[in-house]
Amino acid sequence: MQEQDRIIEISQTFPKTVSRRKLLGGMLTTAVAITQSANGQTIQKGLNDEDPTKVTGTLPAEVGTRSPFVKSVKKPSDISSRSPLQDFYGFITPSDLHFERHHGGVPLINPQKHELIIHGLVEKPLKFSLADLKRFPSVSRIAFLECSGNFRTGKETMTPQEIAGLTSQSEWTGVKLSTLFREVGVKPQAKWFLAEGGDSAVMTRSIPVAKGWEDAIIAYGQNGEPVRPEQGFPFRLFLPGWEGNTSVKWLRRIELSDEPFMTREETSKYTEAIKDGKIRMFSFDIDARSIITFPSYPQSIEKGWIEIKGLAWSGRGKVLKVEVSTNAGKTWQVANIQEPVLDKAHVRFRYLWKWNGEETEIMSRITDETGYTQPTFQQLVEARGSEMGGYHLNPITAWQIKKDGRVLLKPENLRS
Amino acid sequence: MQEQDRIIEISQTFPKTVSRRKLLGGMLTTAVAITQSANGQTIQKGLNDEDPTKVTGTLPAEVGTRSPFVKSVKKPSDISSRSPLQDFYGFITPSDLHFERHHGGVPLINPQKHELIIHGLVEKPLKFSLADLKRFPSVSRIAFLECSGNFRTGKETMTPQEIAGLTSQSEWTGVKLSTLFREVGVKPQAKWFLAEGGDSAVMTRSIPVAKGWEDAIIAYGQNGEPVRPEQGFPFRLFLPGWEGNTSVKWLRRIELSDEPFMTREETSKYTEAIKDGKIRMFSFDIDARSIITFPSYPQSIEKGWIEIKGLAWSGRGKVLKVEVSTNAGKTWQVANIQEPVLDKAHVRFRYLWKWNGEETEIMSRITDETGYTQPTFQQLVEARGSEMGGYHLNPITAWQIKKDGRVLLKPENLRS
Repeated sequence: MQEQDRIIEISQTFPKTVSRRKLLGGMLTTAVAITQSANGQTIQKGLNDEDPTKVTGTLPAEVGTRSPFVKSVKKPSDISSRSPLQDFYGFITPSDLHFERHHGGVPLINPQKHELIIHGLVEKPLKFSLADLKRFPSVSRIAFLECSGNFRTGKETMTPQEIAGLTSQSEWTGVKLSTLFREVGVKPQAKWFLAEGGDSAVMTRSIPVAKGWEDAIIAYGQNGEPVRPEQGFPFRLFLPGWEGNTSVKWLRRIELSDEPFMTREETSKYTEAIKDGKIRMFSFDIDARSIITFPSYPQSIEKGWIEIKGLAWSGRGKVLKVEVSTNAGKTWQVANIQEPVLDKAHVRFRYLWKWNGEETEIMSRITDETGYTQPTFQQLVEARGSEMGGYHLNPITAWQIKKDGRVLLKPENLRS
Repeated sequence: MQEQDRIIEISQTFPKTVSRRKLLGGMLTTAVAITQSANGQTIQKGLNDEDPTKVTGTLPAEVGTRSPFVKSVKKPSDISSRSPLQDFYGFITPSDLHFERHHGGVPLINPQKHELIIHGLVEKPLKFSLADLKRFPSVSRIAFLECSGNFRTGKETMTPQEIAGLTSQSEWTGVKLSTLFREVGVKPQAKWFLAEGGDSAVMTRSIPVAKGWEDAIIAYGQNGEPVRPEQGFPFRLFLPGWEGNTSVKWLRRIELSDEPFMTREETSKYTEAIKDGKIRMFSFDIDARSIITFPSYPQSIEKGWIEIKGLAWSGRGKVLKVEVSTNAGKTWQVANIQEPVLDKAHVRFRYLWKWNGEETEIMSRITDETGYTQPTFQQLVEARGSEMGGYHLNPITAWQIKKDGRVLLKPENLRS
């Protein structure tokens, strides 16, 4: 009865609608919401977080929402936004927190008016609407997508999101490109194809036809729902394990050819300087990489048992093993890997560690099924030269553990 | 230049903010949005869906949103909302479209104030905050959750959502209950535990301790993000393969005992009448089930090749095979199943069928790894008697294909 009285009192004192900002701003103990029930009856509810058992909760919704206590965002710039890797559980990235990297913003596309044309060295050029694509046999696969420019360093106060937030993982659904290749009759002399997006940058990349036959997908589904606008709605190319920009979003044209098209994005960009004045072009594969996401900056830890957690992945196949060092790389122990371990997919690794309160460094490294082991930054510099470019940098990330439990990035000196 | 002029003209004619409803209502060809860029500069954009390559798209966002062209909702009642199975791809359910079934609404819970107490037949009763739970070793698994009351029939114009929308699938992350059992020292004489929720219904169920040791999880993560409020934020019990109500949401108390507690929800509800005046209590396992989600009502099909698609699952283990009949059950063919096939998880099945334009019925049936095959409704009636209750009904769902391509449910006569 007393509780009941209090709720009525609250409803007379507070405004009837409370914004999320206000809720978060400290009014959480008392708030009132009016909800319309399915049968039209109005139900008054006190949203009292002190004892939720004393107040009827809100009704089921058409579309769910996050708790107002959950704050996890992508911190966008004008051209990209980074997944908050340190906030994630498991290996699926929530679709609305998938990283973004655009060359001309996110277009608003009416799926009724969007088509994919396939032409060039084919027997029979064809146009496909979204409805057409959905009539073909479909496939689903859980795989990561990573931008080849996914590396930042330089200061101690950097989060996993800032260092490596340009990678995300979804369950992608669509039609195999090989199915469409058979439909249009790709000619034997076709060795490359151009993939062109319908955004304002008209993003273009040349892709070897072999990848199209192997495992390319025209994806229209992402984590159970239609691909998000930021991810290429109504459909995108998806090239498992390859650098993100080749998985052209808002795909509208595929042209088959006997040679690469040498587009702006593959000549002026997405080409890396290496040793002796040479460059690497068409460096498609994402190399093996891992990062510890807990503990990481700005978290801090206490003495005792800690589950070190992180993500590991390779564009060249499955993760074979992940090792963790808790003594600055002197010795390494094998971490647990969460099943299922899928091809060209993020895996979640975990390693139980008892911290004794001493200063140290912790780090992880992956070995993929090709036998390749993630290098140190120094090894990358040695292999590629100090003039190396900013793409395909997959070094071991080390975290410093301070005596007081603070966790700080051990930054790399980019131009030593 | 002409395009540019048109955009400027549009920006002067139309209101500056356009609601989603208006966008959907037919103004789609022309709209204008003002977007604040990351550096504070205001950028004016014409969202022109006629040629998105002519207009700079919107900037990356903190949190993504669906396309305004995508409309997929749960159609809630006062106590539940159903997943739109017919709209899904793959096997992950978008978190905000996960079905809901509440006994006292969705509570607003401050995770800082919420605790789980474990007591009763234990050596050392303990309280755990969310932060405490996250310090323990964690696990992730992709598994379905289904309400035991997940069956509706009775008319031809029913969608998969209406028939069987009380099942959804997520990647769940949390701590094994067995880990906490060891921490509190569960006594050998403990055979059952009470799971109690912190909602206004104070939902309670009795669970055999064996399930707690086997594979129960206290889940705080769902599809990479914190468990949603509708799914038990900040954490819930998750019992893989068992009827949904036993996976108590907003979990706040576990009491170990030598016998079941005979709570209201397990005596007056979630107990089924069967033959000869008998009832089934503690009928935890979800039996094997499948449903074709395409083609289904209200879709219609055209003559020619059609990929029949659907979902299949079993609470007793893995899916062994899914069969499809396209001639009203006379003959059955094995469907393709999308890898990975996981324990107690939805799988996506697909079967390529050439429709000749004649009237027929299509249906699917699953056999799980225990050898159990999904029954017809008639077989369920024969096994349980015509007085059978409304829980754990997993019959084969048949769709009628009409000559004009319309697809209609073949409804079951519930009380024949």
